[in-house]
Amino acid sequence: MEAKPVSESAVTMTELVLPSHTNSLQSAFGGVIMSWIDIAAAIAAQRHSSRPVVTASIDALNFIAPVYVGWVVNLRASVNFVSKTSMEVGVRADAENPIEGKTFHIASAYLTFVALDNYGKPMAIRPVSPETDAEKRRFSEAQARRKLRLQSRSTKTRAT
Amino acid sequence: MEAKPVSESAVTMTELVLPSHTNSLQSAFGGVIMSWIDIAAAIAAQRHSSRPVVTASIDALNFIAPVYVGWVVNLRASVNFVSKTSMEVGVRADAENPIEGKTFHIASAYLTFVALDNYGKPMAIRPVSPETDAEKRRFSEAQARRKLRLQSRSTKTRAT
Amino acid sequence: MEAKPVSESAVTMTELVLPSHTNSLQSAFGGVIMSWIDIAAAIAAQRHSSRPVVTASIDALNFIAPVYVGWVVNLRASVNFVSKTSMEVGVRADAENPIEGKTFHIASAYLTFVALDNYGKPMAIRPVSPETDAEKRRFSEAQARRKLRLQSRSTKTRAT
Amino acid sequence: MEAKPVSESAVTMTELVLPSHTNSLQSAFGGVIMSWIDIAAAIAAQRHSSRPVVTASIDALNFIAPVYVGWVVNLRASVNFVSKTSMEVGVRADAENPIEGKTFHIASAYLTFVALDNYGKPMAIRPVSPETDAEKRRFSEAQARRKLRLQSRSTKTRAT
Amino acid sequence: MEAKPVSESAVTMTELVLPSHTNSLQSAFGGVIMSWIDIAAAIAAQRHSSRPVVTASIDALNFIAPVYVGWVVNLRASVNFVSKTSMEVGVRADAENPIEGKTFHIASAYLTFVALDNYGKPMAIRPVSPETDAEKRRFSEAQARRKLRLQSRSTKTRAT
Amino acid sequence: MEAKPVSESAVTMTELVLPSHTNSLQSAFGGVIMSWIDIAAAIAAQRHSSRPVVTASIDALNFIAPVYVGWVVNLRASVNFVSKTSMEVGVRADAENPIEGKTFHIASAYLTFVALDNYGKPMAIRPVSPETDAEKRRFSEAQARRKLRLQSRSTKTRAT
Repeated sequence: MEAKPVSESAVTMTELVLPSHTNSLQSAFGGVIMSWIDIAAAIAAQRHSSRPVVTASIDALNFIAPVYVGWVVNLRASVNFVSKTSMEVGVRADAENPIEGKTFHIASAYLTFVALDNYGKPMAIRPVSPETDAEKRRFSEAQARRKLRLQSRSTKTRAT
Repeated sequence: MEAKPVSESAVTMTELVLPSHTNSLQSAFGGVIMSWIDIAAAIAAQRHSSRPVVTASIDALNFIAPVYVGWVVNLRASVNFVSKTSMEVGVRADAENPIEGKTFHIASAYLTFVALDNYGKPMAIRPVSPETDAEKRRFSEAQARRKLRLQSRSTKTRAT
Repeated sequence: MEAKPVSESAVTMTELVLPSHTNSLQSAFGGVIMSWIDIAAAIAAQRHSSRPVVTASIDALNFIAPVYVGWVVNLRASVNFVSKTSMEVGVRADAENPIEGKTFHIASAYLTFVALDNYGKPMAIRPVSPETDAEKRRFSEAQARRKLRLQSRSTKTRAT
Repeated sequence: MEAKPVSESAVTMTELVLPSHTNSLQSAFGGVIMSWIDIAAAIAAQRHSSRPVVTASIDALNFIAPVYVGWVVNLRASVNFVSKTSMEVGVRADAENPIEGKTFHIASAYLTFVALDNYGKPMAIRPVSPETDAEKRRFSEAQARRKLRLQSRSTKTRAT
Repeated sequence: MEAKPVSESAVTMTELVLPSHTNSLQSAFGGVIMSWIDIAAAIAAQRHSSRPVVTASIDALNFIAPVYVGWVVNLRASVNFVSKTSMEVGVRADAENPIEGKTFHIASAYLTFVALDNYGKPMAIRPVSPETDAEKRRFSEAQARRKLRLQSRSTKTRAT
Repeated sequence: MEAKPVSESAVTMTELVLPSHTNSLQSAFGGVIMSWIDIAAAIAAQRHSSRPVVTASIDALNFIAPVYVGWVVNLRASVNFVSKTSMEVGVRADAENPIEGKTFHIASAYLTFVALDNYGKPMAIRPVSPETDAEKRRFSEAQARRKLRLQSRSTKTRAT
């Protein structure tokens, strides 16, 4: 399979924070931001692999700042790295107070996805070709993270 | 007030068609597409005016092709023209079948928005400065549409 | 196919404006009102044609007044006119402040729908028979709008 | 306070059954039908009392037949009876298979509502005046049900 | 079929009251509470019967106290009694103000469910075996309610 | 402030997978599971601290198995550890195929929450007292994870 450039599957997603995304504090739930991150990443993974995908894992995620009703959340997702049957997608979420016009970083995440064949089984994914310097840096950082994930999966104590 | 370039308020929005957006035919409702168009346009209008905005009107809209569950809808919105207290925003929606990788135009719309002051009254909006050739063409086309809208509003028979 | 009277497919729909229909201003999004208009019209079109339907177009729509959380929106939809494979449905939306008991017109729209056969292709629709004076007036106005739509579709510049 | 005729607060509500209203069987949840019944009744109670209202109780409710995705549910609600600070509202729900054009009764319910003053306390409600024979019959039946409810509330074993 | 203990199908469900569950008074709709009761009961009925289920009826339900945005609703559901093809499930809903830490009873309900075979027809359900004193009391109370329901169904005047 | 036992804030939450939680594959989105995990954890954190809370971070999360429409997800959340102004909550999610009656582990997560004072600032949280052996083990494991999180936060390269 021929490699596909990172830019061909990159996703820009814009969400408006509505009352239904919040608790009584008027700030968006962490879980709502995670849902948007998952959808942005899933669209990039589908575009890269031309296959249905499922989320396999998400790395640790810090919520840097709260986001309020009426604000806008901008999400950018791109495929960082492809191993045989899984892809790492990086997502950066920024919030924007549309009245003050200020934008700030609220969360970043790395997710891995698996592409499924017609029987619902994981299948080989075409390679990704990083082209810009930032894409090349993310490619090698993702490769390093993949090693850490495989190590940690084999040593981790099960939760709860 | 200083003019603001079109590109500073342009919006790219990506939506995934979910089962909850469809009727029993598995294709997205026209009304769902209209909702996404309204939100993309409202975000652009808010960014341009740095004020809360309300939708004043939407021009005629044709649905060129159906969109199915699992597909992606890409929306691009930008402020075409500003009169004293209203803005025209143009939105183009394209659908993408992520498995076949094909993209096609599904709908385009022109909406007008009003920006509100602290008492909820319409207020003056900063001018918009078109910079590219496409932006300049849209600016003059929007000016022409505004004249037609004002005419048609004064002659139109009330509905139903 | 025998003609069906307008009254047999007319729809009355009532919606309560909830916090999830609004932005931070507490007034309902334009896109939410458009969604309700589309659903009311689609039900009328389905009732008339006894077939699944899809929205083909919506004419220009002005939002005459804002609607707030806790208010009620009343929608009335009826089939105005049937050409060979498309129907025009007119919808009138009125809002009601249930505490003050006042009702006022907020928007009106004309939508066209296509009925689908078992292969998802447009099919011939039974004629509609207007019976009251208002129904007859709407029938001939809809016929005139259809001509304008066909003209405008052939001369219109594509959006965005 | 002057009595208000039943017809002035009567509600007609139409809902389309969407995939998000169903479980995996494709039929609408009982709880979704109950929600629509509650909203139709609450709008009638608000219209009658010109006050915010809260649901105090709902009588026994049988689901006579299932309703499927793509079908339409028609709800009619009207105020049957007013005691000093509570109203009984009757709701009848019918389903319609839009392709076959058949309509059948799916559920009926009696709900009681309380109207609230500006401090959130129950307040006196204007009387209702039944005008047609059916309205008069419902008025006296509702009076009888009210007696039974007051009796049963004083003797009932608490649930679970 | 072997009887199954009540405890094996008992359900504990916790819901957070969000802005989208409320009207403009900030208290949850009666219909939202009814939906949660229906889902908790349906899960218990499915667990007991190992079959898809549909709600057949819900007994009278009083809303004892309002519930506000940010509060938590705890629902406990268990199968009280099984007749040949229907189950009675009892649900108790308590609300919790998480800041004050107070919990209070808001509603209780008895629902009946039918289990469906592969053709969508009602089928025989395995018996339930009550084990604790509370379970035994609920079993015999449910048996008594079933008799009343069958009587009342044969004498009741149809609603609206 | 007096310590509070783990069991007093533990949460059991049950969710039914509906069509609106899924993509076109009929399996629930990763983001939907993450949302439920966030809500279950937030309720436990609120119960422990008797204060409004916000999600500060979530540790790495693996999705062990897919979950389908009609299945039930059981979530259990408890406060593992409290440092001065943050709490770690552990959540375990199990899925249940209600027809086959099988239950299996689908995901586990550790989240940290901050409690807010009346000015929206982080405030001191009462200690937690683990009582069972499992609670004591989770307490010391959480203490170790907290150290790792603080280290990793100071060395991590920013995403995307």
